Amino acid sequence: MRVLITGADGFLGSGLAWRLANTATGPSRLTLTDRQFVGKSTQIAGADLMPGDLTQPDFLDTLFEPGFDIVYHLASMPGGQAEAESERGRKINLTMPLDLAWRTAASRPGARFVFASSIAVYGDVAVEVISEATPTSPGLSYGAHKLMTEILLTDLARRGELSAISLRFPGLVARPPTESGHGSAFMSQIFHKIGAGEDFLSPVPASARCWWMSRAAAVETLLQASNLQCDAPTVLLPPALYATMAEMVQAIAAVVGRPASIQWGDDARLTRLFGAMPDIDASLARGLGIAGDADLQSLARVALSGD
Amino acid sequence: MRVLITGADGFLGSGLAWRLANTATGPSRLTLTDRQFVGKSTQIAGADLMPGDLTQPDFLDTLFEPGFDIVYHLASMPGGQAEAESERGRKINLTMPLDLAWRTAASRPGARFVFASSIAVYGDVAVEVISEATPTSPGLSYGAHKLMTEILLTDLARRGELSAISLRFPGLVARPPTESGHGSAFMSQIFHKIGAGEDFLSPVPASARCWWMSRAAAVETLLQASNLQCDAPTVLLPPALYATMAEMVQAIAAVVGRPASIQWGDDARLTRLFGAMPDIDASLARGLGIAGDADLQSLARVALSGD
Repeated sequence: MRVLITGADGFLGSGLAWRLANTATGPSRLTLTDRQFVGKSTQIAGADLMPGDLTQPDFLDTLFEPGFDIVYHLASMPGGQAEAESERGRKINLTMPLDLAWRTAASRPGARFVFASSIAVYGDVAVEVISEATPTSPGLSYGAHKLMTEILLTDLARRGELSAISLRFPGLVARPPTESGHGSAFMSQIFHKIGAGEDFLSPVPASARCWWMSRAAAVETLLQASNLQCDAPTVLLPPALYATMAEMVQAIAAVVGRPASIQWGDDARLTRLFGAMPDIDASLARGLGIAGDADLQSLARVALSGD
Repeated sequence: MRVLITGADGFLGSGLAWRLANTATGPSRLTLTDRQFVGKSTQIAGADLMPGDLTQPDFLDTLFEPGFDIVYHLASMPGGQAEAESERGRKINLTMPLDLAWRTAASRPGARFVFASSIAVYGDVAVEVISEATPTSPGLSYGAHKLMTEILLTDLARRGELSAISLRFPGLVARPPTESGHGSAFMSQIFHKIGAGEDFLSPVPASARCWWMSRAAAVETLLQASNLQCDAPTVLLPPALYATMAEMVQAIAAVVGRPASIQWGDDARLTRLFGAMPDIDASLARGLGIAGDADLQSLARVALSGD
């Protein structure tokens, strides 16, 4: 069993790589790829590290020489950055995922392709509850490209060329303070600041309603998704927690064991993008055994631990 | 004003080319492209004919040397053929339209891009009335690729890189008897057969409910769409007529002036794809002045005339 993780040095990718490397799942060979390896993925024993640029056909030729039974495609350029660098964003977030899907299907017909899509596919939606069936209307190129990739994967699955699943992840917390390019960075910073006992200036108001998911829950979701039957849906909305900034702050403070010092801002754009979420109906994923974080305090605990 | 029509030797493209060449719209230069020119587009005085393969970057380089103010992108591989020849279908129906959109935006930022999309983006939908807001779930690669192209165009329009509009056309009638590759060919054949006074074996039952649109109405739709304001919707469902096979046959027979001789079949696949359509809500397009065919007999008249 050959397994490939793209974006394997990133926040989600390195978490998945560690989890896979430390899970006894029979004889499998793990290949990790990313532009470069600077994180702790370099320390994974037995994994093949393949640094390189997935937008370069030559690199893909080399990478795909053996073919893969499971591909976790996590590499992408964050939405804010892709909006500014549109040509590179298009190559990384659209052309490359399509190429990767076609190559995976060509090298191992019926291979499992697990795609980290995003709730950015929805855009501004005027509904009270979001599910997989909610009409999409992406407000950023990032979301448009994720949606286009989902549609391609669903079509390849229909044709039996791939066994594909797209997971519409919310922003994950708590990303390292060093990571940039994510408009939702404030949702991670709030963990680090409260954890360090520092003041935090939130760009969005206390009443902003967000979707929350820890990296650990996202990793479990990826693993469970890769084991679903072929007749499972090809698009899933993983169960995120739905809570206001104030509720999340309260949970973090409870875990840390001291009160948080927050000043609340009123950035209309960020509030519209990340803090005006409707409720989430993840019953499809839950029905398939995908649980997500148990509650806000468990999420805070795991996010503060760096997992 | 430089205007490009792709697929200009095809059924819809040649109709549009004639209409544009014979309309006084001020100083404009018309470029027609298709794999080859064998139809009556060759006789259009003053148009530049550029035969070539749009999937070849070298040809696109030459074609786009001057840039275009309006591009009508009509070239595509029909759904049935694309399903069988998936790699060529993907190049023609997905990779090429995306390239074309990017090139148009790069050569003339803000240029008008009018895209012939398809009702195939919907797939099997369990609704009573279809509109632009109906969730899509394409059942063929053809529809998946059209939908992906629509999403890209909407995003480029949001960014101001193109002024784009996608028109979700139904199958047009009456295509020439020589055209193949369309699963909906029977919807055209019925005009030719009744027109010639011949028996016709319909693959679908008399009660099959279809969407009908003449080429002339589609050409008017393209022209009107190209003149819409920039803040118009980026996706439109043109007003098709909604009628059973029996009702259409009655209208054709009335125009021809003699009774039709039809044997009704029961092909479950074709009935599901083309003969089980819900009603159509084209109020968005109608509100923008796009009228479609007036009624079944007008449609029959224009379709029988070869227009």
